[in-house]
Amino acid sequence: MSDRQGSLVSFRPDIKVVDCTLRDGGLVNNFEFSDDFVKDLYLANIRAGVDYMEFGYKASKEIFSPDKFGKWKFCDEKDIRKVVGDNKTDLKISVMADVGRTDFHKDILNRKDSVIDLVRVATYTNTIPAAIEMLEDAKKKGYETTVNIMAVSKVPLDDLTDGLELLAQSSVDVIYLVDSFGAFYPEQIERLCDKYLNIAAKHNKKVGMHAHNNQQLAFANTIEALSLGVSYLDATVSGMGRGAGNCYMELLLSFLRNPKYNKIAILNFIEKHIQKLKEDGIVWGFDIPYLMTGILNSHPSSAIQFIKDKRNDYSMFYQELMDNVL
Amino acid sequence: MSDRQGSLVSFRPDIKVVDCTLRDGGLVNNFEFSDDFVKDLYLANIRAGVDYMEFGYKASKEIFSPDKFGKWKFCDEKDIRKVVGDNKTDLKISVMADVGRTDFHKDILNRKDSVIDLVRVATYTNTIPAAIEMLEDAKKKGYETTVNIMAVSKVPLDDLTDGLELLAQSSVDVIYLVDSFGAFYPEQIERLCDKYLNIAAKHNKKVGMHAHNNQQLAFANTIEALSLGVSYLDATVSGMGRGAGNCYMELLLSFLRNPKYNKIAILNFIEKHIQKLKEDGIVWGFDIPYLMTGILNSHPSSAIQFIKDKRNDYSMFYQELMDNVL
Repeated sequence: MSDRQGSLVSFRPDIKVVDCTLRDGGLVNNFEFSDDFVKDLYLANIRAGVDYMEFGYKASKEIFSPDKFGKWKFCDEKDIRKVVGDNKTDLKISVMADVGRTDFHKDILNRKDSVIDLVRVATYTNTIPAAIEMLEDAKKKGYETTVNIMAVSKVPLDDLTDGLELLAQSSVDVIYLVDSFGAFYPEQIERLCDKYLNIAAKHNKKVGMHAHNNQQLAFANTIEALSLGVSYLDATVSGMGRGAGNCYMELLLSFLRNPKYNKIAILNFIEKHIQKLKEDGIVWGFDIPYLMTGILNSHPSSAIQFIKDKRNDYSMFYQELMDNVL
Repeated sequence: MSDRQGSLVSFRPDIKVVDCTLRDGGLVNNFEFSDDFVKDLYLANIRAGVDYMEFGYKASKEIFSPDKFGKWKFCDEKDIRKVVGDNKTDLKISVMADVGRTDFHKDILNRKDSVIDLVRVATYTNTIPAAIEMLEDAKKKGYETTVNIMAVSKVPLDDLTDGLELLAQSSVDVIYLVDSFGAFYPEQIERLCDKYLNIAAKHNKKVGMHAHNNQQLAFANTIEALSLGVSYLDATVSGMGRGAGNCYMELLLSFLRNPKYNKIAILNFIEKHIQKLKEDGIVWGFDIPYLMTGILNSHPSSAIQFIKDKRNDYSMFYQELMDNVL
């Protein structure tokens, strides 16, 4: 197993914090954030020393109708610029592009024409060749790139190894370990990090971590990964994200010792915006149905429906899940 | 560092699960549980295969007026028996006795006259000799015993080592690592477990873990401890406990692979009782003020007050805490 990198008192300058509140949080409220929310989050991230802010998806307007989603599903250049201008700050701008759901030839501009710095490609293991096509396109256009391999908890280990080797030979900068279903325990994260870090190191790539909170382990798994050498860390304000949500930004910034990080800016943002969001009926975060989909390693959609239906017959729900996923 | 014990697929027969819902949860609602709640929890614990159920404290009626607290602050023999009869089950009964707050000579009966199996003594490091007096009394009366050393995150390491050595030479069966303020990260739990386990092993004692959820790490720290060889694991239903609460029983039972454990019984209990408790205005669980007292390694009382006052000026609260605790 990998040795721990750094100590709890020092800091590692290779760490990069990525705020995914708009992107993963957008899955909760259909990307319908107020302009105020987005602007204040941008300012808070700058003040907090966050390294990247992900504005949302670069979704295809052929597939998804702009009438039906908020603008951060699409992240038009003009919409980002309305918030960040030319972004003369240390905060870099990121967008996510799903394999098969992005018109990347058209919608991802040359970097010199864009304020975006980082293009993150989300893929399943069976679409890795298509992901590499997108990654090479983005790299040629001048972007930093990451790849997020989703749902690895459902993939045979050999397939994952082969996929990681393929990606490591591409031009991608960072390969993300993603716990899509909140299914992994820290011991499993340790083993997977070992695999990702070994393959990445051979090709001079970095590794990232994107966790979900189905078992209240998003933060624990993120700091487990970082202590082993993972350097790109995804988090969202108050864990806002689909289902059980993500690693809390306020927990992560409290853990990191680099004096450039300042959680107070995030606390002020929470005070102004997050409670209001919850009062408006936007729901996310750990709850028993997500625990169940987590331990059964399955997509949270059935749990989201269970909560929407205001059911609380937990043991019946568990039986339904067992019928459907095992 | 200690090697991991067992795997994620097998189980360790030395593991014992201790339900502290009435005891730590009682700190939230002044020990005023309905008789139905207590009876159903007892039945749920039996069905779930939980090893010990802690009914509450053995508090001194000289110090605490029975008019001002629910009966589980005192755990009179007759009150426990009203729930469990002679307790002809595999579930053992536990009570907690605080050093300096228990008339143990009078209130802790001989075991042959009691349905209680386990007496747990809670102490600070500076009262360990007094704790040992209580532990020896309980052992002589025929009980299993544990000692919970509280607030160790504030204690110089040498004092802790000396205290552990003293306790290990007593007749106590189990020494608990307690993260009173939810201040420890898993890496710190690993180092502390190493210390506790090494000292305990020399004297043939077991080690237990009692975690708090200020940083969403109660479950993560509990399974970290167990994977290193800790065998007594405290949890409460839905994490009910003071402030940020405890390790969730439903998470812990989902993790354990011993077929004797059955989380369904706990889910049914939650469905019937926990939502109602929350609707009645009983509040516990992770929240930002607890995160702050956790990272500042301080008692949650100020955070409990902050929430009671319905404040949400988080960054001002943080400044107040810094003034008071650092």
